[in-house]
Amino acid sequence: MNTFGEYFKVSIFGESHGPAIGVVLDGVPGNIPLSEEDFTVDIARRASGAVGTTPRHEADKPKILSGVLGGYTTGAPLTIIFWNSNVRGEDYIQFDAIPRPGHADFVANIKYKFSNDPRGGGHFSGRLTLPIVAAGVVAKKILNAEYLDTEGNKEQLNVKINAELLEIGGETDKSKWDALLKKTASQGDSLGGIIECRVTGLGVGIGMPFWDSVESMISHAIFAIPGIRGIEFGDGFAASRMKGSEHNDPFGPDGPVKNGAGGINGGLTNGAPIVFRVAVKPTSSIAQPQKTWNFNKDKEDILTIKGRHDVCFALRTPVIVEAMTAIVLTDLL
Amino acid sequence: MNTFGEYFKVSIFGESHGPAIGVVLDGVPGNIPLSEEDFTVDIARRASGAVGTTPRHEADKPKILSGVLGGYTTGAPLTIIFWNSNVRGEDYIQFDAIPRPGHADFVANIKYKFSNDPRGGGHFSGRLTLPIVAAGVVAKKILNAEYLDTEGNKEQLNVKINAELLEIGGETDKSKWDALLKKTASQGDSLGGIIECRVTGLGVGIGMPFWDSVESMISHAIFAIPGIRGIEFGDGFAASRMKGSEHNDPFGPDGPVKNGAGGINGGLTNGAPIVFRVAVKPTSSIAQPQKTWNFNKDKEDILTIKGRHDVCFALRTPVIVEAMTAIVLTDLL
Amino acid sequence: MNTFGEYFKVSIFGESHGPAIGVVLDGVPGNIPLSEEDFTVDIARRASGAVGTTPRHEADKPKILSGVLGGYTTGAPLTIIFWNSNVRGEDYIQFDAIPRPGHADFVANIKYKFSNDPRGGGHFSGRLTLPIVAAGVVAKKILNAEYLDTEGNKEQLNVKINAELLEIGGETDKSKWDALLKKTASQGDSLGGIIECRVTGLGVGIGMPFWDSVESMISHAIFAIPGIRGIEFGDGFAASRMKGSEHNDPFGPDGPVKNGAGGINGGLTNGAPIVFRVAVKPTSSIAQPQKTWNFNKDKEDILTIKGRHDVCFALRTPVIVEAMTAIVLTDLL
Amino acid sequence: MNTFGEYFKVSIFGESHGPAIGVVLDGVPGNIPLSEEDFTVDIARRASGAVGTTPRHEADKPKILSGVLGGYTTGAPLTIIFWNSNVRGEDYIQFDAIPRPGHADFVANIKYKFSNDPRGGGHFSGRLTLPIVAAGVVAKKILNAEYLDTEGNKEQLNVKINAELLEIGGETDKSKWDALLKKTASQGDSLGGIIECRVTGLGVGIGMPFWDSVESMISHAIFAIPGIRGIEFGDGFAASRMKGSEHNDPFGPDGPVKNGAGGINGGLTNGAPIVFRVAVKPTSSIAQPQKTWNFNKDKEDILTIKGRHDVCFALRTPVIVEAMTAIVLTDLL
Repeated sequence: MNTFGEYFKVSIFGESHGPAIGVVLDGVPGNIPLSEEDFTVDIARRASGAVGTTPRHEADKPKILSGVLGGYTTGAPLTIIFWNSNVRGEDYIQFDAIPRPGHADFVANIKYKFSNDPRGGGHFSGRLTLPIVAAGVVAKKILNAEYLDTEGNKEQLNVKINAELLEIGGETDKSKWDALLKKTASQGDSLGGIIECRVTGLGVGIGMPFWDSVESMISHAIFAIPGIRGIEFGDGFAASRMKGSEHNDPFGPDGPVKNGAGGINGGLTNGAPIVFRVAVKPTSSIAQPQKTWNFNKDKEDILTIKGRHDVCFALRTPVIVEAMTAIVLTDLL
Repeated sequence: MNTFGEYFKVSIFGESHGPAIGVVLDGVPGNIPLSEEDFTVDIARRASGAVGTTPRHEADKPKILSGVLGGYTTGAPLTIIFWNSNVRGEDYIQFDAIPRPGHADFVANIKYKFSNDPRGGGHFSGRLTLPIVAAGVVAKKILNAEYLDTEGNKEQLNVKINAELLEIGGETDKSKWDALLKKTASQGDSLGGIIECRVTGLGVGIGMPFWDSVESMISHAIFAIPGIRGIEFGDGFAASRMKGSEHNDPFGPDGPVKNGAGGINGGLTNGAPIVFRVAVKPTSSIAQPQKTWNFNKDKEDILTIKGRHDVCFALRTPVIVEAMTAIVLTDLL
Repeated sequence: MNTFGEYFKVSIFGESHGPAIGVVLDGVPGNIPLSEEDFTVDIARRASGAVGTTPRHEADKPKILSGVLGGYTTGAPLTIIFWNSNVRGEDYIQFDAIPRPGHADFVANIKYKFSNDPRGGGHFSGRLTLPIVAAGVVAKKILNAEYLDTEGNKEQLNVKINAELLEIGGETDKSKWDALLKKTASQGDSLGGIIECRVTGLGVGIGMPFWDSVESMISHAIFAIPGIRGIEFGDGFAASRMKGSEHNDPFGPDGPVKNGAGGINGGLTNGAPIVFRVAVKPTSSIAQPQKTWNFNKDKEDILTIKGRHDVCFALRTPVIVEAMTAIVLTDLL
Repeated sequence: MNTFGEYFKVSIFGESHGPAIGVVLDGVPGNIPLSEEDFTVDIARRASGAVGTTPRHEADKPKILSGVLGGYTTGAPLTIIFWNSNVRGEDYIQFDAIPRPGHADFVANIKYKFSNDPRGGGHFSGRLTLPIVAAGVVAKKILNAEYLDTEGNKEQLNVKINAELLEIGGETDKSKWDALLKKTASQGDSLGGIIECRVTGLGVGIGMPFWDSVESMISHAIFAIPGIRGIEFGDGFAASRMKGSEHNDPFGPDGPVKNGAGGINGGLTNGAPIVFRVAVKPTSSIAQPQKTWNFNKDKEDILTIKGRHDVCFALRTPVIVEAMTAIVLTDLL
């Protein structure tokens, strides 16, 4: 099914070659200021034509269909759509016979071959991160909303979510990224990256013990982003090589003083920042010719993927990681 | 809520200091042979008193209350309980004031302080992995069940799940583990580990694109196990440092030939084995005295945790990883 | 939440004064022919300007945003919207102070007074039956779809759902309805009615024992229609006044021979037609001045509701009853 | 699936011929006093051997397995079981071939014939109302629990649910019921009845507009009780024969003054008592020989059902109606 969340439900719909894609958000509180302009910054971060990202321009303008009245949310389901400018053409048909290495063409072909169901195609999933970013914008608004406390005073939530790239192709020195991206592009190749996300401003005790631990919920949502290979919290994989006396986090008066648990104990937030890292694979579509199997001719074949593709889509992924995190935390709050 | 799954629902209940703990399984097919003896091996793997695991012995005998008749499942909800021998005593009370580093005492305290709700305590969660292992036994049976195909021939599912320890405390040479565990025990310290899980016998196309990708579902369940710090599929974090031409997996006549994607493309199985690794933290309860905060006295204090604890609970975790994986795959099939 | 169903999920959104209302359907099979013209007949039945129904004309044209490609469903979420021509004006504001008798103004006022949330208003709910009728059209298509059986032969589902008015204002002779409606309209008053719905073409054993019995699911959906006061299956309330020897339904070679159980035993279909009746209240908005309470002035007041309203909205309700029934049966199949 | 509710989840399990039946309740607040004695009165009302009810005695003693500590709920899942004294014997086997009129034997046979799944059998469903009554006892406790308001003062919920028989076999004069029951018993026949349920102490605005209206939720749960034929709220079916000026309910200073809507407007409570009536069919198992079909011999046959059965199980149903209502309201609150 195409829905995520219990109390803040995110339902996505649409195909890149249909009239529109969009998202319905159920569980949005009323009285939160929201306009179509509020989406501009995050949508630009996802779409940006910086070095290493695809230069194709899309008119990613959101249209709010329901749930907002006079500039404020109403509490009713909030629907946002994006009209498609239909550019698909015939260029994906060949991949039915000659699946692209690293793409979902092969499995989508087998799973959906008797219908004309386009779900599962990588191209499809990629476009669907646009309504996810839009849902993230609304979730971030909710996580920073004003509310009245029990004595009638105005209070404000203040949850800040910030994801950024730590590495590109293993390179941690940001000053070298530009040159690395250009060189890789000139080779017709691609790069992956590692993103770190930090969340501050949450109280203690958010999350559910066991099944719906904070780590469970965040990892569930993060692995829905195409191209993610791993996730780790706090000390992560390094923790498995530490001794208990090294990894254990003594408490100070305000909670944990180191943060090797990444802000989470027993599945619940412990007041320290949530910290996790995400491994993004290199872009699968590369300009170099690649060996693969031609299932029509039943023999090996060489595939050359035309068009312009991201050298490193990890550059565009941090805002999607933020959106997924915001969606999960809104659901848990 | 205490339930996981849509089509194969696993609901756990019970506290370690109450009369019993148990699990209700909804969505079990009928006519699968099942007896109380079938649980013996996996329960022993979880409880085993091998070097590095806690020597405390518990009578972990399952009792089937419903859903089995004459040695076969009926299709109705299947309930399994384990009677508790109540051994809790007063030994956990002190941790309210002086939370154990690395444990959930602190957050559980704040979240549940006005009730006598014991959820979230590490001791509690640890015992709850027993019904999880029992649920895993049933799930493995379902994943290897006989069924009639559309022409009336007997067929058999043949899904094999195998998890094993790759590293303890960073040591990959198994011949050195025994000495390492003994030395660490003598220091009053603890060790973590890395577990690899492999699944074979799944067809192509299992899973749901986007929200309920195979990676999303598996990671969700794995992070419900106490003490997990990270998960990676296929090439995992290393993928983020590879080029596209290195990580991309050309197709051969039978599907992917390398397996850098860990058996999953676009959230769906691609026919290759599912492969993932899990980072387990070192046991939090160590014999060494530890600095932490005394919230009663509002000052730093030294905590010494009595009793006998696992030097490395990662030794007992593989069967739990298998159980969680079996639960997820049964739900997806 | 605004979603109904497990396997066929219906999510409605929109407010009558926003840009659009609509519905997202998740769980639609692929390869079912569907066009925007397919909605015409049922939408006309809901909107019709026959005697006794409101003469206001709305352009209820559906627009399919996703889930259909080249005239066939794709299996992906199917989204249908209806643009609103914004006609609301200020005419509902007064009802905040002087709630209309029989309407939800009073409870909506109290429940949603601190937000600008318009949910719960009768006017709102009424308009939302339009996407329900659209969802019903899709569900009826699914219930009559072609499919391939296990030997590759084409088969066709053949589930027919027919709801019609049995009574208006207690009058069962249809030839007298026209005169009764005109007379009641001239008195500024309104009428209710009883609708009978019959479903044929279902096999034996559809439904779930206990919680999700066929009666439970149908009644759940039917009471979501505004203005329903009761539902009864088969012999209904009369059954409570029969003896067992009268109400019991002997089996013949093809199943039950009478149909006092309305096609359902133990929550499952028994092969006989499903038969149920629904009581619709008289329209609440009447032209006669009515006594009610003015909460601004805190005293009794006389309310006169302007505009043109249905004398008997039960005339427009059968197609909505059919839609709800089709939605439930699609979910259960 | 065998679970009902979103925030207060009720999961039933067990078969009458297995070791035990029971229920898991998830979403119970902490700190509510609860003991096994609290169930005595309601269980006795369900089981009672008064005139017209079956004289078979069962030891319906509840055993609390989890969720209660020191006499108070903990907030963790609450599990209650009832051990079965296995009395089934072979007496149900014949009904596979010769289904009892009015029973679910026929549909259960077809739906579950290839497994040994006993779900759907009327005998099974009847026994399952025992854990429902137990769940109702807990729900009633929650609906009358003490809590601290925002200024720290003790407050108490005060929701009272009362269901009672209005009619037996159409007879409304209670003084005549005893004679009627005796006479019907002597004829080897059975009687149905009508139950009215009233709920007071709810505030305004409980429920959800549209899909999860109070009527939708209550009717969903009530039709899960075996043998229910109809439900109506407030004026019910009579409303469909009234004019708007008669049925409309003017508001007074405290809300509606008549209660033709049965305490609900637009799916939400309006502050007046919730009132609904339920039609219960006559007991299907009667002592008289009955014509039915013998599916083994493929011809008409005469069935005589041995054993002692309720003349009128509607006598035992009010406490089950209360339990279902309490479960729904706890979920909605």
